[in-house]
Amino acid sequence: MTKTDVTRAQWLAQFESAPARKSPAGTSAVATIRSMSGLDFIRAITEGRLPHPPMADAINFCFLEAAKGHVTMLGLPLAGHYNPIGSVHGGWACTLLDSCMACSVQTMLAAGQGYTTVELKVNLTRAISSESGPLRAEGRVINAGRTIATAEGRLVGPDGKLYAHGTTTCLILGL
Amino acid sequence: MTKTDVTRAQWLAQFESAPARKSPAGTSAVATIRSMSGLDFIRAITEGRLPHPPMADAINFCFLEAAKGHVTMLGLPLAGHYNPIGSVHGGWACTLLDSCMACSVQTMLAAGQGYTTVELKVNLTRAISSESGPLRAEGRVINAGRTIATAEGRLVGPDGKLYAHGTTTCLILGL
Amino acid sequence: MTKTDVTRAQWLAQFESAPARKSPAGTSAVATIRSMSGLDFIRAITEGRLPHPPMADAINFCFLEAAKGHVTMLGLPLAGHYNPIGSVHGGWACTLLDSCMACSVQTMLAAGQGYTTVELKVNLTRAISSESGPLRAEGRVINAGRTIATAEGRLVGPDGKLYAHGTTTCLILGL
Amino acid sequence: MTKTDVTRAQWLAQFESAPARKSPAGTSAVATIRSMSGLDFIRAITEGRLPHPPMADAINFCFLEAAKGHVTMLGLPLAGHYNPIGSVHGGWACTLLDSCMACSVQTMLAAGQGYTTVELKVNLTRAISSESGPLRAEGRVINAGRTIATAEGRLVGPDGKLYAHGTTTCLILGL
Repeated sequence: MTKTDVTRAQWLAQFESAPARKSPAGTSAVATIRSMSGLDFIRAITEGRLPHPPMADAINFCFLEAAKGHVTMLGLPLAGHYNPIGSVHGGWACTLLDSCMACSVQTMLAAGQGYTTVELKVNLTRAISSESGPLRAEGRVINAGRTIATAEGRLVGPDGKLYAHGTTTCLILGL
Repeated sequence: MTKTDVTRAQWLAQFESAPARKSPAGTSAVATIRSMSGLDFIRAITEGRLPHPPMADAINFCFLEAAKGHVTMLGLPLAGHYNPIGSVHGGWACTLLDSCMACSVQTMLAAGQGYTTVELKVNLTRAISSESGPLRAEGRVINAGRTIATAEGRLVGPDGKLYAHGTTTCLILGL
Repeated sequence: MTKTDVTRAQWLAQFESAPARKSPAGTSAVATIRSMSGLDFIRAITEGRLPHPPMADAINFCFLEAAKGHVTMLGLPLAGHYNPIGSVHGGWACTLLDSCMACSVQTMLAAGQGYTTVELKVNLTRAISSESGPLRAEGRVINAGRTIATAEGRLVGPDGKLYAHGTTTCLILGL
Repeated sequence: MTKTDVTRAQWLAQFESAPARKSPAGTSAVATIRSMSGLDFIRAITEGRLPHPPMADAINFCFLEAAKGHVTMLGLPLAGHYNPIGSVHGGWACTLLDSCMACSVQTMLAAGQGYTTVELKVNLTRAISSESGPLRAEGRVINAGRTIATAEGRLVGPDGKLYAHGTTTCLILGL
């Protein structure tokens, strides 16, 4: 087994056993979201105590870890995520990066604060196939102001290679 | 019925009856892709003569029309596309815009030419819910050079409002 | 004379005689800015009734026309704007596009409203030399919300070719 | 003296004495550029053995350090770089970030290879005034492929605060 094979097997095991995949799919009530800090909310999803987002099933990814300003996810691209020309659709990587970047911003928010993603830019640096995954998406806050926060994200394979990276701008709001 | 209701009903009918939703999901063989101009290839998907991309089922969108440098799609966001905080995931709009922008670039290519999306930037200008759709995604080439092409995209609702917009950079390659 | 030569001569004449180049360089007092609508403020610069920005001298551009949601500038790249590898620095096009896009957003604002540019993305589609100009920069609002506005810009030469294009996101604030 | 004052004084001394400011302004001949690796070329500018770019005078910045995949510059914003509304023009930060990011890509290239900047995105995270500088711009390669390379940049003040950040996409070419 190569080092890549070992990492792939480990990430696959992490993906299969992730608590965030055992919870029901759904969204949380605004009252629930409002009552928790952003970090507590993301951790509750990560630990399976709150529903995981429905889009995580459509795109086949899960929440893995959350710390202040830093969120990790894992995604497993499937045949069902292909574009017409024989590779995984760019929207798959965009969805993972949007998720981990936006959630890293959310971990900075106090209870009662909300946010919305204003824009994101993604570079697709390497073609993804259904053999590439699982891929690890890491979002990290770059700058957190009172009204605007920015974050960056990286999407890395078990081969240690970078498949995509991006940055995002979020607007912080009262809930 | 409001004007929005009428447009929504029309777009829904277009979506339901689109030939690109009747074809099987799948990707085309490289030999097939290589043998056709980009416009012929996209038109064949649009008219249901070649498979539609599997990602179109995951995200629930379809190819509608294609002309040189201009591609239109329709997408219907569902409960299954939600993020954790109660709206359609930003990755849904990214996938539609990536699709219509990249395919508009593809319509400029001669047989034997391929391309890959290098980057895209998306602005999310209005929250999307499962009541918002169908949404119409229009991709349009801005600049087509020999090696690099750029395109822009708009995602508009039946209410005439802009839900998202973006730009992309593609690299043109020999196949 | 070719069509390009005729256009170049016209644009050069417009540039040389622009009222916005006859005013002193400087910034306006906050009280002045606050007292005017954004469109009145940009028009006052365009017509030479308020100072033109100092950066317009460093980069050699001027305000030409302003309407609601639409601002036009002209820039003349010089030998003093070159990068180390023999063409006009990418920052030159970025500065013109940032200017025309941000000012197009400003034309949407009521008296008492301010704004700040949050981010911009620029595609450089064609190399610029000191022979390319004057170049015409057009900024146009895409979406103007209460808190966030987006705009796009194009930088076109007298040859009708597109040298650069971009989009921007601005945050609208009370002044 | 605060820690910020000490750092500002040090950076100002570095800026004033930088060898890249003692060389004449100018561009290098293509034959010169073609004969050197990208790192040797950038180092020769940094050490004042080749001309510094004219734009570095217009924007008042200089090359400071270069290593493989990493370039540092210093910029001192002046009253002459202001926008109409009382802060340093966004194009000033864009020019510094474009420079340090593109040059970090250039340090990866072998003799005979050239490049062009395809696009850049910049987030402006904090207003810059003529009191803010000098600011340190660091460009770092994210991904260097055969045809496309990406890099990121940060613009930091002597107060340790982040004033702007960005990413860029460059196309690698034969010269």
